[in-house]
Amino acid sequence: MSPVRNGRHLFNEIPTGFPVPGKTTVYDGSETIDPDTVALNGGFLIKTLVLSIDPYMRGKMRDPKIQSYSPPYYAGKPLDNYGVGVVVRSDNPAIKAGQHVYSVFPFQEYFVDTDPKKYRVLENKEGLPWSVYVGAAGMPGQTAWYAWQEYSAAKKGETVFVTAGAGPVGSFVIQLAKLDGLKVIASAGSDEKVAFIKSLGADVAFNYKTTSTREVLTREGGIDVYWDNVGGETLEAAIDAAHTNARFIECGMISGYNSTEPYGIKNATLVVAKQLKIFGFIVFALASKYSEEFYRVVPGKIAKGEIKYTEEAVVGLENVGEAILAVQKGTNKAKVFIKVADA
Amino acid sequence: MSPVRNGRHLFNEIPTGFPVPGKTTVYDGSETIDPDTVALNGGFLIKTLVLSIDPYMRGKMRDPKIQSYSPPYYAGKPLDNYGVGVVVRSDNPAIKAGQHVYSVFPFQEYFVDTDPKKYRVLENKEGLPWSVYVGAAGMPGQTAWYAWQEYSAAKKGETVFVTAGAGPVGSFVIQLAKLDGLKVIASAGSDEKVAFIKSLGADVAFNYKTTSTREVLTREGGIDVYWDNVGGETLEAAIDAAHTNARFIECGMISGYNSTEPYGIKNATLVVAKQLKIFGFIVFALASKYSEEFYRVVPGKIAKGEIKYTEEAVVGLENVGEAILAVQKGTNKAKVFIKVADA
Repeated sequence: MSPVRNGRHLFNEIPTGFPVPGKTTVYDGSETIDPDTVALNGGFLIKTLVLSIDPYMRGKMRDPKIQSYSPPYYAGKPLDNYGVGVVVRSDNPAIKAGQHVYSVFPFQEYFVDTDPKKYRVLENKEGLPWSVYVGAAGMPGQTAWYAWQEYSAAKKGETVFVTAGAGPVGSFVIQLAKLDGLKVIASAGSDEKVAFIKSLGADVAFNYKTTSTREVLTREGGIDVYWDNVGGETLEAAIDAAHTNARFIECGMISGYNSTEPYGIKNATLVVAKQLKIFGFIVFALASKYSEEFYRVVPGKIAKGEIKYTEEAVVGLENVGEAILAVQKGTNKAKVFIKVADA
Repeated sequence: MSPVRNGRHLFNEIPTGFPVPGKTTVYDGSETIDPDTVALNGGFLIKTLVLSIDPYMRGKMRDPKIQSYSPPYYAGKPLDNYGVGVVVRSDNPAIKAGQHVYSVFPFQEYFVDTDPKKYRVLENKEGLPWSVYVGAAGMPGQTAWYAWQEYSAAKKGETVFVTAGAGPVGSFVIQLAKLDGLKVIASAGSDEKVAFIKSLGADVAFNYKTTSTREVLTREGGIDVYWDNVGGETLEAAIDAAHTNARFIECGMISGYNSTEPYGIKNATLVVAKQLKIFGFIVFALASKYSEEFYRVVPGKIAKGEIKYTEEAVVGLENVGEAILAVQKGTNKAKVFIKVADA
């Protein structure tokens, strides 16, 4: 085999507000690689098949001097995020050619790595599309599965409010909540997303762009659990609507990721009066407790249709910038992944 | 014995901002009672000795239609709060004349009640002043004792920041934290209070009116536990200074109790990024788990000087309004109680 293109999508500069495709991040198609001959140095060559686009990536587009839970992106280097690839060649017996592996991938078509411990080999006995392993059977699904068990203290008959309910995390949470016998109120930003939420069994689904979150929560009699993906004014409305002893699962606050003027939460005194318990968390921190159960149980449930998902493929590393922006703005239709190669 | 005055301190009208002595609450010395002959109706007559003045009382001065964790005050009726009294006469074998009892008391010199279950009989083998049973050995001490155990997850070598550190709750928390081997940063609003905090063993003590809380927390390298008695801008500074996985014990937010313009917390996105756990709580909710241990252990520790406290007596039900205002403004010197009678 002669050299082939090894396309990459690079971080370019820290954005102010929303990331700008072609400016914040740029595609670079200038590199090549010969998969047959590239030096492995005791490692293995991975061909990228799918890459996930997730809201939290915005937080990595920051001044690298600022510490946070996830490493920053560096200008001139490929972006990275969860991906699935196939092993093309391997000099390490722990990873075999032909195996499919899951980890945080650089945004490029091929790459060599030497540390097999960073990778989970996906058996995929269920024959799911590989993209599912960066969605419902990957980090977003884990986020929902881990934190719902750890923090919801859900009791049958209680009411949960789930924001970004059509996303890979929110849609999973809705289904877990229904399995636990809760009344589910869920919101999303388009009528198409709302229809998907309803198909998952949510009792109340609404488009927050055309219906007041505050009015819905009041009309429905308040909430016992809040799954927060958005923060800001919606969090404030959820605090106002919370019952005594409500649990707030703070998964993300996308409303604040791209704003230069942060929203001030004005009703924090209710945290005391209502005895609210608020759990900020990052999925990695719960992995050691829940990940083996997750891989044992969840792919099978997805294959049987017991857990439903939607996804939206964006083809080609050239289109990463637009995909990231769509997820930040919520203009995507479903969980977004980059399809880099078929096999 | 002929009839004696039965002075009362009444709620009068809902305040806007700080309560106004003589307007928000008023003293009424017009009633009399004959302790020897007043009808007990199967109940018992209590003579009030001490009454506690606590920050949370401000929240009871509200429109009675607004639900909250603690019942509202009603115009024309006596205020109520924790108190200790002596039983003068009793027709109920569960409560005996001469016993000292603790409960929520109406703000009046004498009253008849019929439900002994509302009262804890104080043995006081240690011979503590009765006022201590509405302070370090009462609700404020319980607040510190219960919630520190329930929520702090304190580990030796960690750092805690305690606001209102000279109050009956904060000063107790400081001592519990030192016993657990933490570095303690504590603030208060006067140099006299700061001196008391230092005497309790706090590693860093400062007057927040003359020193920037934010600067102190940054200089000291951040915090693992925040005991919040004040909320608002201080809570925001604590979020900024929090280490990953910090615990926030939300005991009170006095900075917001008397303001008409609530402060907006602008850094809530850090709750996710730093994986903060925030516990709003009310002491009553933890009582069944911890109260017996508290009464078994804490009065003895106080008597031995292992737990220190300060207190400030305000003599007479006439002066309740000023005492309440002082506690809301923080112009008191120490934990305030009303001395109603000596014995």
